[in-house]
Amino acid sequence: MKLYDYFRSSAAYRVRIALNLKGIEPDERTFVHLRMGNQRAQDYLALNPQGLVPALALDDGQVLTQSLAIIEYLDETHPAPPLLPVDPAARARVRSIALAIACEIHPLNNLRVLNYLIGTLGVAREQKDGWYKYWVDVGFEALERKLAHEKETARFCHGDTPTLADICLVPQIANARRFNIDLSPYPVLTAIEAACLALPPFAAAAPERQPDAE
Amino acid sequence: MKLYDYFRSSAAYRVRIALNLKGIEPDERTFVHLRMGNQRAQDYLALNPQGLVPALALDDGQVLTQSLAIIEYLDETHPAPPLLPVDPAARARVRSIALAIACEIHPLNNLRVLNYLIGTLGVAREQKDGWYKYWVDVGFEALERKLAHEKETARFCHGDTPTLADICLVPQIANARRFNIDLSPYPVLTAIEAACLALPPFAAAAPERQPDAE
Repeated sequence: MKLYDYFRSSAAYRVRIALNLKGIEPDERTFVHLRMGNQRAQDYLALNPQGLVPALALDDGQVLTQSLAIIEYLDETHPAPPLLPVDPAARARVRSIALAIACEIHPLNNLRVLNYLIGTLGVAREQKDGWYKYWVDVGFEALERKLAHEKETARFCHGDTPTLADICLVPQIANARRFNIDLSPYPVLTAIEAACLALPPFAAAAPERQPDAE
Repeated sequence: MKLYDYFRSSAAYRVRIALNLKGIEPDERTFVHLRMGNQRAQDYLALNPQGLVPALALDDGQVLTQSLAIIEYLDETHPAPPLLPVDPAARARVRSIALAIACEIHPLNNLRVLNYLIGTLGVAREQKDGWYKYWVDVGFEALERKLAHEKETARFCHGDTPTLADICLVPQIANARRFNIDLSPYPVLTAIEAACLALPPFAAAAPERQPDAE
């Protein structure tokens, strides 16, 4: 198993947490430097036409892409500890939290989108920062309200063991911190983040602890 | 089972296709008019704090949100016909195609984002149209290349029966058509779309065939 990684990618960070929770050590890790544009190199595009990280190359040559698809694969092939509950409606709840981050917050605030705002649309730096803050706040407000009101929320997003939802939450909060977003309106989210970061599999996956960190 | 729907929502369209493929008829359908802002009404926000469609209320009162989470729930509770293959790496491939649409294309081009570009950033109409086209083309180019090169691609995105990948592809192409995107660079995608639309479950889910269509 070979992981294509980048320390600052939230999506790669999710996969690193999942691998750590499962106790899986990839045979090899390759770092794809997004700010230097290495994801657009021909050899990487041949592997992953989307030119995004992460990607996970299996021993038989198959290359898995999209962090949530990779994590579901890891969960199906390495069932312990489970990253999703057993009950179908509970699984849907966990997936909906993960997707609320992966489909509603992260896509609007990743590097290539911010570059388009500045480079192509020519928006000012403060407008770009306002865009970032707006979409994080819209997403986090809804999530905070949901988690605060639903009885399944406990130490983690769903019960007392980490799930796919927490795996998506922690990198998104780390990203928000890097952009100096005020997180005080989100006490439930940050309490769950703290519970996660107290666990070695989450802590060891943090961007600043990766070999390619700057 | 009660579906909260809106004819023009790509995410709701996905769920309609899945329900039709499974032969499930919701007991009730409520139409949440996004352009009139009904998704921000207090009673709807109480149900779904994200203020997005679709949502699926179960008979026990639980409300499922996020289209992909809802579809995985439907697939787990109503296994026939399956919307995902059996093999874990094949499941990851199907999910990665679905997520490449749901996380990389759709979030950048939905109504609230286009409204922000115009209303808050004050970009010109042609810049907004350029943004739409740019993100559809980036996403479709990568997907076309992937599907054209991988041996699993057949009549549908993965083999000869429709999966979660096709369920995401068809609404995204419909959306692109509505915005007059030139689809001639994407012969594989449009051939799969045609194969899907030849099936009654896909055809009956189309926006223009819904009771709330304008």
